[in-house]
Formats: sequence, C-alpha cells, structure tokens
Amino acid sequence: MTDRTPTVQTIAPQPYTTVAETYDRLGELVTTGLGEKLHHDKADFLTGLWSDSAPPVESVLELACGTGLMLQELVERGHRVVGLDRSEAMLTQARSRLGPDVPLLCATLPDIPVDQHFDAVISPGASLNYLTETELAATFRSVAATLRPGGLFVFDVLSPAGMGGRGGGRVLAGDFDDMAFILAFANSPDGDSYEMTWTQFVRMESEAAAPYLKSVEHHQVYGVGPETIRASADACGLVEQGVYDNYVFRPSDDATLVQTWVFRLPGA
Amino acid sequence: MTDRTPTVQTIAPQPYTTVAETYDRLGELVTTGLGEKLHHDKADFLTGLWSDSAPPVESVLELACGTGLMLQELVERGHRVVGLDRSEAMLTQARSRLGPDVPLLCATLPDIPVDQHFDAVISPGASLNYLTETELAATFRSVAATLRPGGLFVFDVLSPAGMGGRGGGRVLAGDFDDMAFILAFANSPDGDSYEMTWTQFVRMESEAAAPYLKSVEHHQVYGVGPETIRASADACGLVEQGVYDNYVFRPSDDATLVQTWVFRLPGA
Repeated sequence: MTDRTPTVQTIAPQPYTTVAETYDRLGELVTTGLGEKLHHDKADFLTGLWSDSAPPVESVLELACGTGLMLQELVERGHRVVGLDRSEAMLTQARSRLGPDVPLLCATLPDIPVDQHFDAVISPGASLNYLTETELAATFRSVAATLRPGGLFVFDVLSPAGMGGRGGGRVLAGDFDDMAFILAFANSPDGDSYEMTWTQFVRMESEAAAPYLKSVEHHQVYGVGPETIRASADACGLVEQGVYDNYVFRPSDDATLVQTWVFRLPGA
Repeated sequence: MTDRTPTVQTIAPQPYTTVAETYDRLGELVTTGLGEKLHHDKADFLTGLWSDSAPPVESVLELACGTGLMLQELVERGHRVVGLDRSEAMLTQARSRLGPDVPLLCATLPDIPVDQHFDAVISPGASLNYLTETELAATFRSVAATLRPGGLFVFDVLSPAGMGGRGGGRVLAGDFDDMAFILAFANSPDGDSYEMTWTQFVRMESEAAAPYLKSVEHHQVYGVGPETIRASADACGLVEQGVYDNYVFRPSDDATLVQTWVFRLPGA
C-alpha cells in the first residue's frame, strides 16, 4: 500500500472489489501477458493428472475461485465443485456465471469453512502468492483437513523467474472502449516480492462521451520458495507428487515462470 | 485512423489537440521508454555540432516544436529561435513556456511561412516520420528555401530498428493520479509503419473522486528510409554531412533506434 491519502473512489476496501465486474474482459490479455496458461489448458492438465486416480476425482474445491472460470471448466468436465474466495464482488460474478447450484463460500485463507471432504483441492491462479509464509503454512493445514484420504492438492505459484519477469517497471495496459486498465509491476529490491498497482477506468454511462470512474488497487505479491512450500506440506503430512512447468507434464526448472505443484494426502 | 464512429470526446480533430496540456508530464517516461534522447542531450549535440560553424549559428527555426521544450533549451544557450507546429493546442503550451517574445507559427509541413533565412533548421522529435514520401520531399524544398547559404538542417527519424521496437503489441502507460495515459503501438505487416493509439484520461475536477474524461488519438507513423531522405535532399541541393546514432557523434548503424541526420545548404 502507498501512503497516499485514501479516498472512497480510488482505494478499494478489499482487493478485487473494484475490478470484479470487468475482470474477465481483461483476463486473456493479462494472463498470457504474464506467461500464465488459460483456464482451459489448466483444466486439461488437471483432468490428465487425475485420470488414473482411484477412487476417481469427482468433488473439487477451488481456493480463490474468482469469477468462476475454472469452476465452469470443471463443471463442464462432470465434476462436483465448490468455490471459495475472499471477495464478495468476485463471487457475485461467479454466481452469475455458474447459476444457483454451485456452492460458493466467501472466506479468507487459511480459513476453509466446509464440512465435507474433497477428492481434490485446487488453487490455479497464483493465489497462494498473496499469502505470507505463516498464512501459507496454515492454509496447507486447512487443505489437509479438507481432503479425503488419497486426495490431491494442486496449485500454482509464480516462480522466482516469474516474479522477476514482472519487475523493472513492466506495464500491461489495454483499452476496451468503455473500460481501460493499467497494471504496473514494481519489484522489491531483493526481487522476492512485488507490488502490482491496478488502475482502472470504467465509463459511467453507455454513451461514448460519458466520463469515467477511476479505481486503484494495490496488491502485494510474495515470492513462495520451494523450501517454504515443502516445509508447509511436511508439517501437515501432505506428500509431494511433482512440480511441473506451468501445467505441462515436464519438471519445473530455472526458466519456469509458473510452477504447478501436486501434493497428495496419504491413505485410501 | 480507424473506421470507428467518431465522437466529440474520444476522437480528436487533429493530432496532439487532446494531449497538449498533459504532454510534458509524460514526456520523460515516454521519450526514454521509446529509446529517444531527452531535449537537454539533443541540445548538447546541436551546440557541439555547430560550435565551429562560420558564420556562427545564431538563428534557429524548429519544425514541429510542440510545447517548446527544445526552443527553451536553445534560448538558454543564447539562440534566436522561431517555432513552427501544426497544433494550436501545442503552441498554446509553448507560448506559456516561452513568454511573448518567441515567434511561434501555426503551419502544417511542407508549408513553412517565414520571410527570413535561418542559420539552422531543426526537427528533433521524430516528427518527419509523420510525413508521406511526397510530403517529405516538399518539406526538404521548403527547408532549403528557408536556410541561409551554408545553413544546416538537422533532424531525426525513427530507424527501421526503432520502428520495429515499437511493434508487437508494445504498450507504454502511466498513472499520474489526476491523469493517466496508454500508448499502444501496432506495426503494419511489412514493419515499415505503425499506428500509435494514444488514450488519455484527465480528471475533470480537482478532488480525487471526480470522474475522468477520456480522449483517444490515432497517429500514423511512417518509416523514412535513407534512400527517401537522400533523394529528397538531392532534389533541392542539400548536401549530406552525416548520419549519427541518436545524438551521439558516432555513425548510425543497424542497431540505431533514432538516426540524427545533418545536411548543409551549399554556399557561404
């Protein structure tokens, strides 16, 4: 966060509140601009990953489900899904995408307030990069308590290379006529975290000459190193199955922008 | 220009009309982002170039002077200057920078409506890249008619490397709180021209929560090859003195982003 005087309009009370409505429109531009995979490709990886699972993966909980793009992919592939997100604004978008039948929970990690067990828990949007080390460890504990024996935990994080690729004053921007956005990335001096400043202009009325409302969100994103992840997993009994290169079935290496991690709860 | 329906607010009647007031604020960010030199460095090159000129270079006409940043540098170095620009909005900014004593002319190249001769004519802002081949040749004729015998014509153009460097969906953007801009560059398929789309949001009132007005300008920028430049010079008797690498006294080469050309009118 900056030390500028906050105002109602320009500083959102919670991340994603001001950008939820327009989020999906800039999704592809931003996702590919950051070197991430699109939801369809991620879902293909997931179904490939658990295709030989026994018992099969039927129920899936998504952490930080956002507007529900991945949940929709999984519903279309026949899964029973539950979504969790800390942003009510994003869940409103997810609800209108998914209809009334998909359970959606508003909760902030590490809190996972569910009373069932899942075949898989996923978080495929670099969302764990928003967590501090302590929050990450607590989230792993919550996940372990939420999986059925033998269940899978699959998530991605920005790798050190991915973090660095966002630095150096890098900017993504786009103009969609009735809305425009600027994403500016500023790395910390040690390169292990960055602040993303998300500036958005949304037209107030339908006619082309109407003025625009501006919003600004500041997102602090942390580096999540392999040691931190493995320590969190060890502490709650999750067993590492692999670290893949951005939703492709090859091992992660130094050039990997996004690491796809797979853990399994013993048993079954 | 695009074929979208123009509206009063979003399509400017003439390039630089909507961006004139805020132009200098984004100057440094954009100039260095595009690999161009700042005005102070350009002025140092010019005064170095003509330091051994006899008779000395005293009077200077700048073509496409914009908001007058270079004119101010030259005034501070003791030159008598005249500025020409096609944009009244930009000249309004130049007038408030330079005060009432510097002659400023509103005219569109190749028209140079002056009744005096100059020791030097300059155009140091890649402005000739806005001209078609025919307009460029006519501008050279106007310049030759405006120089005193022995006078110098110094200008820069984006090189092929400089043109390519703007392509591939490249974007520059910045948020200055009460205004924000997005510059998006789209190359032509042959890489020899590009369209720059200049989107700007300016806050309508001083308070932070006030809405913003949006403007969009589309600038068509052409490649200007060495053959075209040399043919234009030959046709009006201007003699090439050198092609330098972006305001440094070394020859231009294939990696040069901005070529600084120097011509001389024979005589004196």
